[in-house]
Amino acid sequence: MRSFEVKNRTSTDDIKSLRLITAIKTPYLPDGRFDLEAYDALVNMQIEDGAEGVIVGGTTGEGQLMSWDEHIMLIGHTINCFGTSIKVIGNTGSNSTREAVHATEQGFAVGMHAALHINPYYGKTSLEGMVAHFKCVLPMGPTIFYNVPSRTGQDIPPPVIHSIAASPNFAGVKECVGHDRVETYTKTGITVWSGNDDECHDSRWDHGATGVISVTSNLVPGLMRELLSKGKNPSLNEKLLPLMKWLFCEPNPIGVNTALAQLGVIRPIFRLPYVPLPLAKRVEFVNIVNGIGREKFVGDKDVRVLEDDDFILVGRY
Amino acid sequence: MRSFEVKNRTSTDDIKSLRLITAIKTPYLPDGRFDLEAYDALVNMQIEDGAEGVIVGGTTGEGQLMSWDEHIMLIGHTINCFGTSIKVIGNTGSNSTREAVHATEQGFAVGMHAALHINPYYGKTSLEGMVAHFKCVLPMGPTIFYNVPSRTGQDIPPPVIHSIAASPNFAGVKECVGHDRVETYTKTGITVWSGNDDECHDSRWDHGATGVISVTSNLVPGLMRELLSKGKNPSLNEKLLPLMKWLFCEPNPIGVNTALAQLGVIRPIFRLPYVPLPLAKRVEFVNIVNGIGREKFVGDKDVRVLEDDDFILVGRY
Amino acid sequence: MRSFEVKNRTSTDDIKSLRLITAIKTPYLPDGRFDLEAYDALVNMQIEDGAEGVIVGGTTGEGQLMSWDEHIMLIGHTINCFGTSIKVIGNTGSNSTREAVHATEQGFAVGMHAALHINPYYGKTSLEGMVAHFKCVLPMGPTIFYNVPSRTGQDIPPPVIHSIAASPNFAGVKECVGHDRVETYTKTGITVWSGNDDECHDSRWDHGATGVISVTSNLVPGLMRELLSKGKNPSLNEKLLPLMKWLFCEPNPIGVNTALAQLGVIRPIFRLPYVPLPLAKRVEFVNIVNGIGREKFVGDKDVRVLEDDDFILVGRY
Amino acid sequence: MRSFEVKNRTSTDDIKSLRLITAIKTPYLPDGRFDLEAYDALVNMQIEDGAEGVIVGGTTGEGQLMSWDEHIMLIGHTINCFGTSIKVIGNTGSNSTREAVHATEQGFAVGMHAALHINPYYGKTSLEGMVAHFKCVLPMGPTIFYNVPSRTGQDIPPPVIHSIAASPNFAGVKECVGHDRVETYTKTGITVWSGNDDECHDSRWDHGATGVISVTSNLVPGLMRELLSKGKNPSLNEKLLPLMKWLFCEPNPIGVNTALAQLGVIRPIFRLPYVPLPLAKRVEFVNIVNGIGREKFVGDKDVRVLEDDDFILVGRY
Repeated sequence: MRSFEVKNRTSTDDIKSLRLITAIKTPYLPDGRFDLEAYDALVNMQIEDGAEGVIVGGTTGEGQLMSWDEHIMLIGHTINCFGTSIKVIGNTGSNSTREAVHATEQGFAVGMHAALHINPYYGKTSLEGMVAHFKCVLPMGPTIFYNVPSRTGQDIPPPVIHSIAASPNFAGVKECVGHDRVETYTKTGITVWSGNDDECHDSRWDHGATGVISVTSNLVPGLMRELLSKGKNPSLNEKLLPLMKWLFCEPNPIGVNTALAQLGVIRPIFRLPYVPLPLAKRVEFVNIVNGIGREKFVGDKDVRVLEDDDFILVGRY
Repeated sequence: MRSFEVKNRTSTDDIKSLRLITAIKTPYLPDGRFDLEAYDALVNMQIEDGAEGVIVGGTTGEGQLMSWDEHIMLIGHTINCFGTSIKVIGNTGSNSTREAVHATEQGFAVGMHAALHINPYYGKTSLEGMVAHFKCVLPMGPTIFYNVPSRTGQDIPPPVIHSIAASPNFAGVKECVGHDRVETYTKTGITVWSGNDDECHDSRWDHGATGVISVTSNLVPGLMRELLSKGKNPSLNEKLLPLMKWLFCEPNPIGVNTALAQLGVIRPIFRLPYVPLPLAKRVEFVNIVNGIGREKFVGDKDVRVLEDDDFILVGRY
Repeated sequence: MRSFEVKNRTSTDDIKSLRLITAIKTPYLPDGRFDLEAYDALVNMQIEDGAEGVIVGGTTGEGQLMSWDEHIMLIGHTINCFGTSIKVIGNTGSNSTREAVHATEQGFAVGMHAALHINPYYGKTSLEGMVAHFKCVLPMGPTIFYNVPSRTGQDIPPPVIHSIAASPNFAGVKECVGHDRVETYTKTGITVWSGNDDECHDSRWDHGATGVISVTSNLVPGLMRELLSKGKNPSLNEKLLPLMKWLFCEPNPIGVNTALAQLGVIRPIFRLPYVPLPLAKRVEFVNIVNGIGREKFVGDKDVRVLEDDDFILVGRY
Repeated sequence: MRSFEVKNRTSTDDIKSLRLITAIKTPYLPDGRFDLEAYDALVNMQIEDGAEGVIVGGTTGEGQLMSWDEHIMLIGHTINCFGTSIKVIGNTGSNSTREAVHATEQGFAVGMHAALHINPYYGKTSLEGMVAHFKCVLPMGPTIFYNVPSRTGQDIPPPVIHSIAASPNFAGVKECVGHDRVETYTKTGITVWSGNDDECHDSRWDHGATGVISVTSNLVPGLMRELLSKGKNPSLNEKLLPLMKWLFCEPNPIGVNTALAQLGVIRPIFRLPYVPLPLAKRVEFVNIVNGIGREKFVGDKDVRVLEDDDFILVGRY
């Protein structure tokens, strides 16, 4: 179902050169549908402050809570609005090969620049099955593979990556397993993005990573850009670590959802099973913002502590 | 779920000015999925030969045989590839208000220029229900309404159209009921596209219609362009009438599917319940092509009579 | 995907013997989901008053406004709860062969006794296409075919029916075209159910029809049973005609929805594009009920005239 | 959307008393659809050999590879065919609250006896989010909660279970974390099923577990029944451990799929990302069967070593 007409088709090398890719948050309306106006504003902030790519519908963007038609629509929308300003990487991965194949085909058909693929989480499979799964989707276009055993319950070991790395569509790995694993790849010329914000500075400057696929950059894209592109900067890294630690005190995207709501750039609406961080943590966030400087964060409203009643949690949508 | 970022947003007036809109055919691969390469070629032929708009997933494009995710994907794909060269009008209508609302919201989110809406066919409703249905979707963007009682089992009477025509998103009517009905609208300043190829010349030049939403232009876009835009031309109209009659000898898109396959621009694959025209009709088509001139038709392969065995009919896909 | 384990499998002959089949209404909760408690009560009333079959998700039951998963779930639910007391006929027809095949396969897998199939409405097709469509679904189990050109825009002519009637799964035709057509079939031994309540008495007693697939029986199942099973009864027929005329003053199921709400057996909730009958008609209904006798109608609450504000119309659900 | 009519409604206490529940395999046709005939045979073997419940569409049954309509259909089918002979527990869990709510509502509507729920895998959430997720589905009917951190990436800690255990619908926990965790629950009167076949004997006889939700019982239901119900039997346990170890040498259901195909009770068809065990392991299985005795296993064909070419792997279906 390939098309050779798709506009702004991106080469795998273009993808390999991206330093700051933001796993963009998906904001919601009170009935749980997407808040596209808020979404557009978030993406514009990323573009203005130097992010070079966005992951659409990643775990941060809560792809796992989308129907596939919502998911593909959001990829198509992002390409249509921002495809000439930023690389659009659709998370069309799934633990079901059928779904991954179908979504990836659709994502490339609507113009996404690259796909992000995960190994089959929860259901899991053998290494042979993992390779077979990846080989079903890799021919479709530039692809980043994502290894996050703390979510999937299963590591993608280096032999699996090496068995697919020769494909011209293989862009690299988003790796969460640590610096040693990063080096395993970077030493052999495989592009790596850190999947852990708190390790990305060192991965980038000491272990050969190209950049980061970041959650924190939803909040401070300019600082993350600086951290990744202007040489080693341990003091900036140090300054950001408390924010990063705060963001991941509960499973992501709980922290970033809470933060963006308190920054006034999204409505305080959560699709279940996500719920906001408790009050004490919300107070802590305001202090962190004030410590780093409100102007470094996205948006221009005052940061404020939201009350429990300010949040809307939606289970049916 | 509106976005103000969507690129190439088109004004209702832009839509009103289109003379030749092609209800574009959707071609298939042998397993029933879309053949996007063939589709891209078809759209490029339309652009080159002067069509100004395409209806994506109309009854000709077999929207009724698509899943909604296929349908929205195809709209997004068309916008991505061709949105700067031709107006993309998504048929996001449905006899279910829920589906029409959801699809139209998605279609505009991925960038379509206008929506085509039908009254609730088969299920039907009262005139109050029809108006309520249309008012749910009209706020979303430029909209053409489609009246084809021979398909829907129910006429959209002028009072319904008049009750919604004042909306800034109201672009006009695709009308199949005949010249008198066309004039009812054009006299009061409502834009009309003929929905009957065999009447479009007279509708355009004698009854105030702006243009046509055409099936025939899938085959001879250049001639249809000429028929609509270069002044009254009864001899050209006369020349095309046998082709038009042939095309509608069975419910559309049976004829156009058969024709495009014999012209070699699509594979001879039918999604059921459509089946090719019988051999005698297929022979007749080759004669018609030779009479008008092969070079007037899309594609550059020889036209040929396909055998029964050349066709693949798919029921599961 | 056939199963030989399905319980209560019904023979085609069992289906052929049914006289009163009710096209059962689907009631809703205020958010547009199914109101299963009200539904169960409606089905129980049918069983108690002598209906022998129900059509689940017909046009009366608003199958056209259901997602397929809702639709199959409702068939499965009905079989589970009532399958030993009444024949459950799922309307698994569609104008898309793919959808009809998939839904019919699923419907029989969850235990439905028979399928109701429609010719491809709106999209339409050739007679060869119609036969091909029907032949895809007929092998799956006992099947009733439904001819209603005023909805589909296309008649199923007798040759199409005759070409499939020899199948052991062919149960008969729900025919709306009139007495002559009914006789065409009944004379050749084909089972016919009238699809027009106002003609069913004469079809049954004068033209060989076996019974009716009825909308009116949602309201007065006992009287409809009497009309069909206790010999010619022109005075009862005469008595019911004003009710039938009222029910079809707008496209069905607008009337029956309004009526059941005023009888207090369902909540006054409409899925768009359906809207209630206007006040004057609602007053008329109460008079009709009082004329026939409240006790002849389903439910035991007082019949009352609902106000405009009593109704909830849902477009997203 | 509750119904009080659903037949064979089961009390939570009935669920609590089940000792042997089989996480039933879903077999496929060569095009990837369900093979219902083979499925029915598998369920019948379970009933005949003493299993008291089946999990439909669990991870073993590859619910993660089903569309939701397939999934609910299979639950409805199982209830229809076998609901009076065995308890049918639908795995209607999801990492998306919306999906879990919708599927659970539908599962109970088609008559399932109980639901199996998982904490939000992959996406994960906070403990507050986990409780909120569970509280959305628990009111719908008898529920078993499933804790398998090696798949979900997140433990359900005892405080979460205790916070929901007072609900009258709370049936118990399928626990994979080990004997200590099992005892934590059983000491306080909470029903536990072991989720690890190799630990179930000891969990049952030494740590208070009620029984097992088993994969191995797909192959040897009679022996598993004996292991769980006829008193401590370390020698039988010892005899079965090599089979269990073999079954889990790769992520389940790879082993059980391979085994059932070699026993001749299902076709050798895998939905990707699952692939068969390699030849050496397939030879090993035949030896294990011969060691235990072919007659103890389901089916009556000879067990045989399948060749690589015997297997069909399907990615689109």
